[in-house]
Amino acid sequence: MVTIALDVMGGDFAPKPALQAAGALSLAAGSPYFLLVGDERQIAATLDGIPHDSEKIALVHASQTVGMDESPKDALRHKPNASILVAARLVQEGNADVLVSAGNTGAVILACARHFNRLQGVKRCALGAVFPTETRRGLKEDPFSLILDAGLSVEVSAEDLVSFAVLGSAYAHLISKNENPRVALLSNGGEPNKGTAAIKAAHQQLAAMNNINFIGNVEGMDIPLGRADVVVTDGFTGNVVLKMLEGVGLTAQHLTKYAYGKSMWFKAGLYFLKPALQQLKDITDWRQYGGAPVLGFDRLCIKAHGRSQKRAFQNAIKLANKAARAKLVEKIQAELHALHGEAP
Amino acid sequence: MVTIALDVMGGDFAPKPALQAAGALSLAAGSPYFLLVGDERQIAATLDGIPHDSEKIALVHASQTVGMDESPKDALRHKPNASILVAARLVQEGNADVLVSAGNTGAVILACARHFNRLQGVKRCALGAVFPTETRRGLKEDPFSLILDAGLSVEVSAEDLVSFAVLGSAYAHLISKNENPRVALLSNGGEPNKGTAAIKAAHQQLAAMNNINFIGNVEGMDIPLGRADVVVTDGFTGNVVLKMLEGVGLTAQHLTKYAYGKSMWFKAGLYFLKPALQQLKDITDWRQYGGAPVLGFDRLCIKAHGRSQKRAFQNAIKLANKAARAKLVEKIQAELHALHGEAP
Repeated sequence: MVTIALDVMGGDFAPKPALQAAGALSLAAGSPYFLLVGDERQIAATLDGIPHDSEKIALVHASQTVGMDESPKDALRHKPNASILVAARLVQEGNADVLVSAGNTGAVILACARHFNRLQGVKRCALGAVFPTETRRGLKEDPFSLILDAGLSVEVSAEDLVSFAVLGSAYAHLISKNENPRVALLSNGGEPNKGTAAIKAAHQQLAAMNNINFIGNVEGMDIPLGRADVVVTDGFTGNVVLKMLEGVGLTAQHLTKYAYGKSMWFKAGLYFLKPALQQLKDITDWRQYGGAPVLGFDRLCIKAHGRSQKRAFQNAIKLANKAARAKLVEKIQAELHALHGEAP
Repeated sequence: MVTIALDVMGGDFAPKPALQAAGALSLAAGSPYFLLVGDERQIAATLDGIPHDSEKIALVHASQTVGMDESPKDALRHKPNASILVAARLVQEGNADVLVSAGNTGAVILACARHFNRLQGVKRCALGAVFPTETRRGLKEDPFSLILDAGLSVEVSAEDLVSFAVLGSAYAHLISKNENPRVALLSNGGEPNKGTAAIKAAHQQLAAMNNINFIGNVEGMDIPLGRADVVVTDGFTGNVVLKMLEGVGLTAQHLTKYAYGKSMWFKAGLYFLKPALQQLKDITDWRQYGGAPVLGFDRLCIKAHGRSQKRAFQNAIKLANKAARAKLVEKIQAELHALHGEAP
């Protein structure tokens, strides 16, 4: 059984949504085991009103909490018993298989960096995020592509981009069950000579690698169309792209503003389409995806959105459970070894 | 009367759409005067079948043409009589007020750089592009924001970004009649310490400038929402953003794929909404906007999209006419002087 170290103090609405999610999942078949990390008294009091299976749940006290707006470095320096650090230690020491947190992103990543090691051959870790596309892919006909880095880096080297490509390809292979994921660099043109110096150099390196299905550069237009299964970019551009997609979801709701229409037909059309527009909004809202994998460490971490409510937490925990059962980290390490031609 | 140097050999469908547009406009009230630059025989033969006012039109022969896929540098080196160079010379020498071309972007910009000078105080020129937003702005209730650089630069310095901000603010003021355009840096977070080193330094410089209505950083989500009137970014990110918006237009057309629905109600809804979806597609298709201003030179140039047909050319020519009548370049130079506290 997978054991999940759940930082229940992270996120805008902590600790309730994490506890609601753990409670609900603990009652379902195939539930993981939960180590709920945070203020023991607060957890006990909140959990009291939430249906749960107490045999699947244990509490681990952490006396401190990192605020969502705190400076991650300062917070971790002054709060050795912060819930995110305690949870990361549980995973480091093998008491849990995977870390799940909706806390301050910088603090989550710093806690990972402090307690986990980077996999051999990984120059830089990345946050992966999925986004909806028109194209469906893999065994499960996934309508999602993976983009990374989704925000840990700002400026990157060619080697960083190559690391992201390798991690993303392995993740798409192992989690999305995509036999041969198409990996692309996001650039300002399809030709190999387009992009920053780092992109051009990464292009050459990736083109020379046999174990990556590198399809070259894609452009902004190819993102919603889904021409690549794994889109590789720096964390700055990844952030802009993902937030623009969130904005698109809002825009879909406000479609009326762009339209001529106050005609009865138009209004009728909008009325009938409401469920579809709502769905488009849902699908472009990354809170629904259940968390973004932190890739490149020798331990697993799933970062849930800061605004996660119960449903988003449940999805994040399910993803963590699935990734741990799939032995994602070990398999990524094996793929990295194969890629670099080393013995495992 | 404004005189327009129209490079009729530029664009995927040259020379017909440029000639159709010039012909139609020459017959309308307030028409500019056209210098049609290109292969004289080909122009004469094509123009023969197009209604036009021959008193508003003159032909200027150029024996060579730069192909859309040619290397701009090589092409200009080996083709001194390329239509884009001849047209740029007409503007340089004062025989025309503004250059319009749908040709090879790199060649258009190189021709400008060869024959025009940068305005005093401008470190780097930029291509401006408008995109649709929810918010309306300025006297004309424009539903568009300006983004620059839209693709001339790849990696930029803080000074480049400040130049873009100044040029964009002046353009929004003079052309969109926006009294006090809100200027923002595109970044991966709202706080001043977010972004690349160049963005952080530009943030500080812009915050200290009195004559720019700098509202700080905006994020990807703010782009479709239209929180800024002028979005300042490097040409790489600008390219990704604009092409993503094009992709969104396509996605809107394919809305059905994201929906549950094969229900009759859903189909009925889509049917009634078709005009609105078509309009959303139009509004996210930058070919409809009539061209992007090349900002920062002491002469005017409007770059039309390579795929421009008659309507897009007409819009580009109208924009060129308007910008020349508004004495855009002289006024931008005056605003730059005021900004730098120099005598005009």
